[in-house]
Amino acid sequence: MDPTFMLAIRRSRALCPYMKSLPAAKLSVLVRQFTRSSGSSAPILQRANQCPYMSQAIATSERSDAAGEANTTLGAAGSSMAAPHPLSQSWLDRHAGRVCPVAHHMPSAQQKRTYASQSKGACASMVATPGSQPRAPPGSMRLPPTQTRTPGSGLGRLPAPPPKEGPGFDFEQFYHQELAQKHDQKTYRYFNNINRLAQRAPMGHLADSEAQEITVWCANDYQNMSRHPRVLAAMKETIDKYGAGAGGTRNIAGHNKHVEHIESVLARLHRKDAALVFGSCYAANDATLTVLGSKLPNCVILSDASNHASMIQGIKHSGAKKMIYKHNDMEDLEAKLRSIPIDTPKIIAFESVYSMCGTVGPIEKTIELAKKYGAITFLDEVHAVGMYGPHGAGVAEHLDWMLNATMSPGKLKGTIMDSIDIITGTLGKAYGNVGGYIAGSNRMVDLIRSFAPQFIFSTTLPPAVLTGAATAIEVLMESNHTRQLQQIRTRELKHALLSNNIPLQSNPSHIVPVLVGSAEKAKMASDLLLNQHGCYVQPINYPTVATGLERLRITPTPQHTSQHVAQLVDALKQVWQQLGLRTVSDLLAAPQDGSDPLADLFRRAHFEEDNAPLWTDAMLTLPSELLRGSSSAALRCQCKASPLDHPFAVPQAASVRA
Amino acid sequence: MDPTFMLAIRRSRALCPYMKSLPAAKLSVLVRQFTRSSGSSAPILQRANQCPYMSQAIATSERSDAAGEANTTLGAAGSSMAAPHPLSQSWLDRHAGRVCPVAHHMPSAQQKRTYASQSKGACASMVATPGSQPRAPPGSMRLPPTQTRTPGSGLGRLPAPPPKEGPGFDFEQFYHQELAQKHDQKTYRYFNNINRLAQRAPMGHLADSEAQEITVWCANDYQNMSRHPRVLAAMKETIDKYGAGAGGTRNIAGHNKHVEHIESVLARLHRKDAALVFGSCYAANDATLTVLGSKLPNCVILSDASNHASMIQGIKHSGAKKMIYKHNDMEDLEAKLRSIPIDTPKIIAFESVYSMCGTVGPIEKTIELAKKYGAITFLDEVHAVGMYGPHGAGVAEHLDWMLNATMSPGKLKGTIMDSIDIITGTLGKAYGNVGGYIAGSNRMVDLIRSFAPQFIFSTTLPPAVLTGAATAIEVLMESNHTRQLQQIRTRELKHALLSNNIPLQSNPSHIVPVLVGSAEKAKMASDLLLNQHGCYVQPINYPTVATGLERLRITPTPQHTSQHVAQLVDALKQVWQQLGLRTVSDLLAAPQDGSDPLADLFRRAHFEEDNAPLWTDAMLTLPSELLRGSSSAALRCQCKASPLDHPFAVPQAASVRA
Repeated sequence: MDPTFMLAIRRSRALCPYMKSLPAAKLSVLVRQFTRSSGSSAPILQRANQCPYMSQAIATSERSDAAGEANTTLGAAGSSMAAPHPLSQSWLDRHAGRVCPVAHHMPSAQQKRTYASQSKGACASMVATPGSQPRAPPGSMRLPPTQTRTPGSGLGRLPAPPPKEGPGFDFEQFYHQELAQKHDQKTYRYFNNINRLAQRAPMGHLADSEAQEITVWCANDYQNMSRHPRVLAAMKETIDKYGAGAGGTRNIAGHNKHVEHIESVLARLHRKDAALVFGSCYAANDATLTVLGSKLPNCVILSDASNHASMIQGIKHSGAKKMIYKHNDMEDLEAKLRSIPIDTPKIIAFESVYSMCGTVGPIEKTIELAKKYGAITFLDEVHAVGMYGPHGAGVAEHLDWMLNATMSPGKLKGTIMDSIDIITGTLGKAYGNVGGYIAGSNRMVDLIRSFAPQFIFSTTLPPAVLTGAATAIEVLMESNHTRQLQQIRTRELKHALLSNNIPLQSNPSHIVPVLVGSAEKAKMASDLLLNQHGCYVQPINYPTVATGLERLRITPTPQHTSQHVAQLVDALKQVWQQLGLRTVSDLLAAPQDGSDPLADLFRRAHFEEDNAPLWTDAMLTLPSELLRGSSSAALRCQCKASPLDHPFAVPQAASVRA
Repeated sequence: MDPTFMLAIRRSRALCPYMKSLPAAKLSVLVRQFTRSSGSSAPILQRANQCPYMSQAIATSERSDAAGEANTTLGAAGSSMAAPHPLSQSWLDRHAGRVCPVAHHMPSAQQKRTYASQSKGACASMVATPGSQPRAPPGSMRLPPTQTRTPGSGLGRLPAPPPKEGPGFDFEQFYHQELAQKHDQKTYRYFNNINRLAQRAPMGHLADSEAQEITVWCANDYQNMSRHPRVLAAMKETIDKYGAGAGGTRNIAGHNKHVEHIESVLARLHRKDAALVFGSCYAANDATLTVLGSKLPNCVILSDASNHASMIQGIKHSGAKKMIYKHNDMEDLEAKLRSIPIDTPKIIAFESVYSMCGTVGPIEKTIELAKKYGAITFLDEVHAVGMYGPHGAGVAEHLDWMLNATMSPGKLKGTIMDSIDIITGTLGKAYGNVGGYIAGSNRMVDLIRSFAPQFIFSTTLPPAVLTGAATAIEVLMESNHTRQLQQIRTRELKHALLSNNIPLQSNPSHIVPVLVGSAEKAKMASDLLLNQHGCYVQPINYPTVATGLERLRITPTPQHTSQHVAQLVDALKQVWQQLGLRTVSDLLAAPQDGSDPLADLFRRAHFEEDNAPLWTDAMLTLPSELLRGSSSAALRCQCKASPLDHPFAVPQAASVRA
């Protein structure tokens, strides 16, 4: 084996979490394969391509070799004319700090330090229990000057009410005291009045100034489907013909062809017998876990520690025994499964993409354990449907990409998605509308349909909502084009943030959690971004994330351009300076004695966990036409940005065809 | 006092629940006043006018006197030329049985029988607890031949699944057994695929045959607002400008001018500080009772026995102490309130209109008790908003009609509506869309906004849904026209059913519960109505009503005409004969030893409870222009039926102005 590469690999392992995460034996095999094949298909190169920084360097190097000219958009790394192979020692010596933005911010002594292994659980999105008291930072909160306050948006701290007249408990005083605590803890929430403009996505306006547009950076309309022309046309047509509301519950006048259609589309999407639509996925999760947990004799529900509030409530309401396992920790899950008798009914409830941190659940391993110990799997794909998989069915579909993309659905059996018993999803995020659903076997769905009070006693969603959502699902089944664009923009934003010393929680998904670590400062940062820079990013505080891990959660969409990204990063740089917020350098320099949860989170997420993007370079370079050609051309013209807006990781095949 | 009238009154007391409900002393006063004033404003005549049958007779008699000609639309009662006063003995002797449809079906021996007083609780809409086993009638259920079945509509009885492969509990077998029980009990639900046509309300079509139209008779789109042109125009405009979904939860990008607007409209409607919108009123009730019941120290929630499932769940989820009082029984409520220390926080949770039986909660008395014992009141107006009160704010507004109709809102203080602490309502019934809300004090609303997970973690309703619902609320605040029409059609239908020996649960509201008393036969009747007569009325079975009290629940709308009513009644007559269902005569002849819950319910509701319509004749005769003239003319032209379609109780003032 070429000793240059051996050295290069040793060096990169010291710097790079992707390389470091490989066991030595596996690395040895990869390196041997590399020396045999030496081509672009070598596994070690595929691995390197999963790194957003390394892949950029490789692409630059290859382009430099091919065209003999520097790609001017690449800055420092692009200035290397006639570059040696990016895995070579000399190249790394020169460029590592510049190619890898995290390495760049490291004090040189730390560049060689190996971080001590820490326990799992980088995701901070677990809902704190009512008993846990969040920290109360000092100082008072500013209100954005452009917004008037209504009760629904948060009136702020009101004066104490006059004492009650008449006998009995003083309810108003009690409400006042409860709210005062929230103010004192700086966790009182103000809602910003944000009106997203369908014809100008991702722009919107505030309530008071329709003329002054803002860029919306935190909506969950991940794929801009809420403004897709096919979606809007379908909705308006339905309104004209079938009116506004459904007119009743599913049992009483509210069951119609619209809800039957979307349920059949959802069942097809997830390749399950059946699907059932609810008013929200909160209701779907709550209802399903409540019914199963209460009906199954002596049921035990094993729940990931970072599960969403809706699942936590469902488990609580079911009265079933709950066992919480550490976030994404399969050893802990297995130990707990092993402790339960084999014939006891068990449900493993977890998520694919955890929304506030962007970590991804280990679906394959969870299925394996479920089969071994006789459990069923309940997978919340709320933040993944429409976003992952060749048809947008979620991470479970994504993990078998090529199988799902190329085989006809009738011939597929036993894929990862097929092995999940219950999938839940939303119509309110990537599908751009409102509502939630479950998908699974006929009998499971029929049981929930027959017993869940939230389902039985709630009015069906309006026909137009169902038609709009079904159209969005179909659009996103037909083409990967907007998914590719969204992922490219995500990579671009993550890279630009770290390059500019702004810390984020690294993860394999489309969520960009920018770390602040103070409820008050997160709110101030959000207000400054909105009022001084016209960028809307909501602060995420307790109880959505744990106290001390407050953040700005950014969600790029296909219609955010590179210019939008540059504008946001510039605004964040100014805000970071203005408020003296902690940078990547600060977090890397922080003591590692467990006293600094934000720094621990940053390092753990960046250096210890698997951050290889779910959307690999290989997937980004697939032309969307390859899979379901029909409507991608129509779709592309809806989107202002094209893959070519992106300065690196340009999908080669797409650029040829564009 | 004129002995003729004394005799007439004695006679009518024996027949009529309205007269009988008066204490003897009060009656004596009324009679004396009648003999003094002798005009149409005499209290006894006002009372008689509250009786749908007596009021008809009086109107006929007056018209006969005035015009000297019979009203041919009145059938038997109308044939009385030169009729004596309808309260006179000779008139009653001749017409009682014909005027009063219930008296008509009585065996003559029973006409004079006074029914023994029975316990309260005629409402059968309470949700049975999981422990109570519904009766399983023999025989199998038919499926309507015109409908194909999807999993979401109910696949019916599937074959037993193959035994599970691999270790552990066999989930599919368990689901199968649970569903088999439901089939055995005949409570398995099939959903009919009903597509209501906006341009042809109240018509719709089934999934399979767009050509074959049906009349929809059980939707909760009580005021046809789901097809109102102003509503649809507002929704389409919003979709064009702001797209489909809200894009996030209220805290994260999902708070906008649409939700602020509707919350301010709702607060104004109910004259409260603030309102808060949820995805459904199920969520609103559940969330609000859960937060209050769990936060208030040692809270006790007093709950009417017939409360909706959403309230029952909210109380359960709160963990607070629950005390259930008998349906509408104020003595029982007071006894329970008295048993709790005065300083203990107490919530009285009840409804205004109980949806499956149409009974109405005693709001004034409940407020009185709440004030006396230091409780707050939580009133669910879900089936009343848009339907009662001069602005559609519900029964609490309705009870102070003239005050609310004539005084400017700023001058009103201390009305019944003002005395309710928390009002909850829906956007999915009379307002024709989807969603629910609470209204109350700023601090109470802020508390729920800040602590309810269903609210915090659910996507906001789509802007178009909010705009459409807000428009419907405004339409129904501006005019009483559709409310009058709806009530007239309800009276007409109730009268026609009883006249044709078809039993219903009498009540003061717009709900028309036709009594069947068997889950299987209710389903068969519904299928026959749909497939042979083109009338869609869903059967209401356990768990929505108690076993043995199954029914067809009919809800007329302003756009149902007299022709629609005649067609439905004719169809019901045929179905009653075909299936041998129990008639009014059958129920009246049944033993009164408690062995026949359906007959008991019928008699109790008809003879013992206050059935005076909430919408009195005086209100029906008010021209809608009198109150909020602006849009009533525009509204009227949307509706095919006019008050003049109605053969009796024609609003005189309206007919003059029409």
